Amino acid sequence: MQLIDDLIDQVSLFQEDQKIIIHKYRDDNFQQRENATFLMLCRNSELIDVLETIQSVQDRYNNKFNYDYTFLNDKPFDNEFIYLVSSFIPFGSINFGSIPEDHWRVPDFINRNKLLANLNQSNDTMLYGDSLSYRQMCRFYSGFFYKHELVNQYQYYWRLEPGIKIFCDIDYDVFKFMKENDKLYGFTLTMFEYERTIPTLWKNFQEYLKLHYNKQSQQLLKLVTNPISNTYNLCHFWTNFEIAKLSIYQNSEYENYFKFLDSKGGFFYERWGDAPIHSLGVSIVVEEPHQLHWFGDIGYYHQPYVQCPLKNQVFINNKCSCNPDDDFSFTDLSCTSHFLNVINGIEDNSV
Amino acid sequence: MQLIDDLIDQVSLFQEDQKIIIHKYRDDNFQQRENATFLMLCRNSELIDVLETIQSVQDRYNNKFNYDYTFLNDKPFDNEFIYLVSSFIPFGSINFGSIPEDHWRVPDFINRNKLLANLNQSNDTMLYGDSLSYRQMCRFYSGFFYKHELVNQYQYYWRLEPGIKIFCDIDYDVFKFMKENDKLYGFTLTMFEYERTIPTLWKNFQEYLKLHYNKQSQQLLKLVTNPISNTYNLCHFWTNFEIAKLSIYQNSEYENYFKFLDSKGGFFYERWGDAPIHSLGVSIVVEEPHQLHWFGDIGYYHQPYVQCPLKNQVFINNKCSCNPDDDFSFTDLSCTSHFLNVINGIEDNSV
Repeated sequence: MQLIDDLIDQVSLFQEDQKIIIHKYRDDNFQQRENATFLMLCRNSELIDVLETIQSVQDRYNNKFNYDYTFLNDKPFDNEFIYLVSSFIPFGSINFGSIPEDHWRVPDFINRNKLLANLNQSNDTMLYGDSLSYRQMCRFYSGFFYKHELVNQYQYYWRLEPGIKIFCDIDYDVFKFMKENDKLYGFTLTMFEYERTIPTLWKNFQEYLKLHYNKQSQQLLKLVTNPISNTYNLCHFWTNFEIAKLSIYQNSEYENYFKFLDSKGGFFYERWGDAPIHSLGVSIVVEEPHQLHWFGDIGYYHQPYVQCPLKNQVFINNKCSCNPDDDFSFTDLSCTSHFLNVINGIEDNSV
Repeated sequence: MQLIDDLIDQVSLFQEDQKIIIHKYRDDNFQQRENATFLMLCRNSELIDVLETIQSVQDRYNNKFNYDYTFLNDKPFDNEFIYLVSSFIPFGSINFGSIPEDHWRVPDFINRNKLLANLNQSNDTMLYGDSLSYRQMCRFYSGFFYKHELVNQYQYYWRLEPGIKIFCDIDYDVFKFMKENDKLYGFTLTMFEYERTIPTLWKNFQEYLKLHYNKQSQQLLKLVTNPISNTYNLCHFWTNFEIAKLSIYQNSEYENYFKFLDSKGGFFYERWGDAPIHSLGVSIVVEEPHQLHWFGDIGYYHQPYVQCPLKNQVFINNKCSCNPDDDFSFTDLSCTSHFLNVINGIEDNSV
């Protein structure tokens, strides 16, 4: 297998401690790009699925826009991974970084016995219930990814995962769209959280609000609040897809929110996902409903769900190759209709 | 849903009885193309899988070469199919044709009771055993597709099916490669036929050879002959992928071969596949082993099998996104090693 050394002839390569950056020539006259990157947390063992993701993203979007990619891993990427991934991305910067140990490891204040007990008992009762690294990943995406030096150099990110697929052409610059329309957080699929992964999350969230939250507009709390019972409606953005502005996390309000929740230990004692954490977070840090955006024009697959545009004109114009019958976004298991009602200021007591 | 009428503004459209041809502008200065087409037999109901195939072929190959596409169906294509398929193919001619009825229907000499009895008893015992249209399809691909007026205008074809996938970039013109290297038949996956679908095929083939075959070189019969028992080794090209010259069928030798076998009724009384029929046919009409070509550099998926290049340089240079561990071509269920030995003149009594 060819090694990374071979790359040096073709590209400029910057290597330091825990990061490797490969710069490939990019014709910057082509257009004015935003300061943005794709972002993927992945493992060396996921190489083939990572390549499939890149192939799909390049084919349907990035061959026209040439945005950078950033790959993060809790272990160092190996040369095979770096070489093959780089060979799939023709232009721009490709960043490979390790996650700082203190952004990943189980913090000292976590009671090891309590954590292990929950891992043991969650084996069969919830998805990824017995995986410690899944909990670490959720905590990392909840409170650390936006601090990583390879990420915080950018203004916007598009989160990807190994093995996802884009089903429609995206002919406009989504980052420019976010900027020009003052959007802060973009999503595709939404759904309900497994209640048993977050038994104390809502209680802690309410406690945080009481102590620290004093905004006038609480409109976006409607995203996540059941208006009858005043409890969590379990709705969340499916965060394996996000196109968002990093500044929504890079502020004291989000930081306080994350630190407060993190101190409760729920990432480890329960199995809090980054999806409800981002969703509750967005509901308090984003000011205006119009700053959220549903990318309904993007056909998207993350195992096992599909978003497929149902409007004929969207399906046709964007050359979608998904099956509209497979669309999850407008099923009863999705929160998308509710979210759109909140965004559009329509009264909705359905969830 | 937009209708085909909308296309008329954008493209020149030719419609007659059983065929519709859409011509899209193609810059012919770009390169000198061969006289070749993609060919797919498919149904209106397979639209989404057809779009997936086109997306993959365009992305990995045809965006660089802009070859024509030809779609055939035993029923007329509907407007939705024609409109959406056309929208996925930016350049060149896109042919939509119906199969002439007398190339599809069960011929008069077939005993209906005998056919129905075999369909009934084959329900559980073989793949597609109880499907009449599958048998019609196999017969059509064995003896008729190359006579279709939309097909016989070309010299070369690349057969596709709904839902296949190409996993590697193909950076050279495969049709030019075929021509310049005097190749007649190109393949990817190979395998063994289910014996119960062809109980009398070999006997009939031997009878045909005795009556009509008098070539000096019988080298390519080694592809399909077990050297110990002198019976069919069951090896065949998996014909859902073929890149071949149409002239190998458009001659009296192949025509006699097909007519002789067809008269025996085995397409209907048994369930002869076009794969063994093409494979036996190729073994008698192709003169020289070097006129066969294994496309080992093409990553290919047709449910449920994958060909994935195992040579690192091929995998890397062609940006393959398949998993080499999934490769079928060099498993014990594949005939590829045997075929390559025959092509390369290496003694091989393994199958």
